[in-house]
Amino acid sequence: MRIAIDVMGGDHSPDAILAGSLDALELLSSDDRLVLIGDETIIREEMAERRLQDEPRVEVVGTSQVIEMAEPPVNALREKPDSSITRMAEAGGKRAGDKRCDVVISAGNTGACVAAAGKYLRRLPGVNRPGIAVTMPTFFGPVVICDVGANPEPRPHHLHQYAQMSAIYAQKLIELDTPRVALMSIGGEEGKGNALVRETHKLLKDDTSLNYVGYAEGRDIFDGKADVIVTEGFTGNVVLKLAEGLAAGLFRTIAHEIFEEDPDLAMKFEPIVKKIYKKHDYHEYGGAPLLGANGIMLICHGSSEARTITAAIRAGMKYAKLGINDAIVDAVSANEPASEEVA
Amino acid sequence: MRIAIDVMGGDHSPDAILAGSLDALELLSSDDRLVLIGDETIIREEMAERRLQDEPRVEVVGTSQVIEMAEPPVNALREKPDSSITRMAEAGGKRAGDKRCDVVISAGNTGACVAAAGKYLRRLPGVNRPGIAVTMPTFFGPVVICDVGANPEPRPHHLHQYAQMSAIYAQKLIELDTPRVALMSIGGEEGKGNALVRETHKLLKDDTSLNYVGYAEGRDIFDGKADVIVTEGFTGNVVLKLAEGLAAGLFRTIAHEIFEEDPDLAMKFEPIVKKIYKKHDYHEYGGAPLLGANGIMLICHGSSEARTITAAIRAGMKYAKLGINDAIVDAVSANEPASEEVA
Repeated sequence: MRIAIDVMGGDHSPDAILAGSLDALELLSSDDRLVLIGDETIIREEMAERRLQDEPRVEVVGTSQVIEMAEPPVNALREKPDSSITRMAEAGGKRAGDKRCDVVISAGNTGACVAAAGKYLRRLPGVNRPGIAVTMPTFFGPVVICDVGANPEPRPHHLHQYAQMSAIYAQKLIELDTPRVALMSIGGEEGKGNALVRETHKLLKDDTSLNYVGYAEGRDIFDGKADVIVTEGFTGNVVLKLAEGLAAGLFRTIAHEIFEEDPDLAMKFEPIVKKIYKKHDYHEYGGAPLLGANGIMLICHGSSEARTITAAIRAGMKYAKLGINDAIVDAVSANEPASEEVA
Repeated sequence: MRIAIDVMGGDHSPDAILAGSLDALELLSSDDRLVLIGDETIIREEMAERRLQDEPRVEVVGTSQVIEMAEPPVNALREKPDSSITRMAEAGGKRAGDKRCDVVISAGNTGACVAAAGKYLRRLPGVNRPGIAVTMPTFFGPVVICDVGANPEPRPHHLHQYAQMSAIYAQKLIELDTPRVALMSIGGEEGKGNALVRETHKLLKDDTSLNYVGYAEGRDIFDGKADVIVTEGFTGNVVLKLAEGLAAGLFRTIAHEIFEEDPDLAMKFEPIVKKIYKKHDYHEYGGAPLLGANGIMLICHGSSEARTITAAIRAGMKYAKLGINDAIVDAVSANEPASEEVA
């Protein structure tokens, strides 16, 4: 198996990304290859530091450009043909031939990753638009939300495919038995929501291969009502970032109040917060797959640490071994697409 | 001033709603009137219990029907012409003549309130679609989010009006000085988001009467970046319910972990949680106004308690005294609407 990592993406790049990648060597067999993509000098230095300069399982692809986190994706890809994201996506595409990587991973600019995947990985047969599936830890267990930003203006048929793809992903990779799929809306009744939601609801209800449990409201995400929640990328992205921001804000508020009340109590509270963070830790899921891409691309959180990248490599290898993309192709081919759009 | 309250709406109706309404008598002058709308027997009994049977400032409108929280709004209004929500909205409309109420309040079915307002209150001159403006408590102070569900498929022009109306509301009623207005999106760059967001962004940027600070991502809601956040009703509703659900879930998780770790510590933690709840309490804001309606309708949370209703009555009276609707008419008339739609 060949795994390519963009070592230049994310807030803690390249150090944390490189560290997490090299830590993952223990997961690899002798035939596997880790392809590190980025500033060659930095990569070679870190390898030498770890006495890995002769490690046969590591290949280095030197690149001269980096797409920043806030750059407009399409322009960035055009202006930076030698960026680590471009090279990573190329490594995952057909045109890479013998050198094609089974898994490609980046913690960089999400929009650029999605756009580069569109160009180099392209789409699985039958899939109209890829979607990003993030796994959120909740009190009741992990919840997969798809899409969180790849496709801000989807059609009902796209959301139907997100339901199919996410259910397969949740079942196989996260090992949830017949995952309950819900559609994000603003009320429990059929007539609520908007036209997109009402149309999608019909498609999901009619698809007997899904364990569809109906609408989920915002409050249901953390209520254990569903294992997979399907939504358009705009709302999904707001939800994801809101959840992160609110959780951080609440912990800050609680810490502040406890400290004001009783500094000794704050000392006792700290390890409990750490324990909660550990239990509900997105780092363990590694990255979010771009479901529907013809290949395996995992997009990691911008704040990824070394262990996030190691976890992403583990998840990517598992994704490949389980043949999730083949299962997706089978599932979507069972439902004739409305029209084969050109991306 | 005349204030009408639907005493049959909400999870704790009629008791809590009645109690909160009668508690508000101390806010009223001798000329003011409280119009209690609902089951006449229950209302008269409660008044007698409190020795208020001869209170001249209370009027009772007996109704025979109740719209349940989960009923599809439009059907419910058609099938229940004598519902407390219908009668409340009627009381706020022009056709009520001398009996017209300055403020109408309900903690019942939000969709039914919005639909009834459309029929009886109608719209302020120049406003295309009313929007619900909820005030969310955050660590950095209150944040007004509009719309949270009245209009799930708005046009850019509607969102522009939400920005204008919410800014006036935040400035006058919540007393925020030149409130910073942000537009909910999924990234900081101009090219991100969807067509609705990009079009609205242009309108807001060009409106020099607004203190527009650009896009807000999901994480910014609790970050103190803006005082007013404008969004379409679908995402706004998901955001509102997600925030409630996540906050409740996090407190539950923390309480659970603390109890597992050290039951004594849990005892000490409880009053701190109560203090946080009290500081960040939506009850104090009473209800969410339907901005743009030709009248003052406050829609209260389904779980409203007596003090929520009292707070809503106080807020409604303040809203009326400050002439917020006149200011809204002035503001929207400054921007010629794209087209005068029929609701």
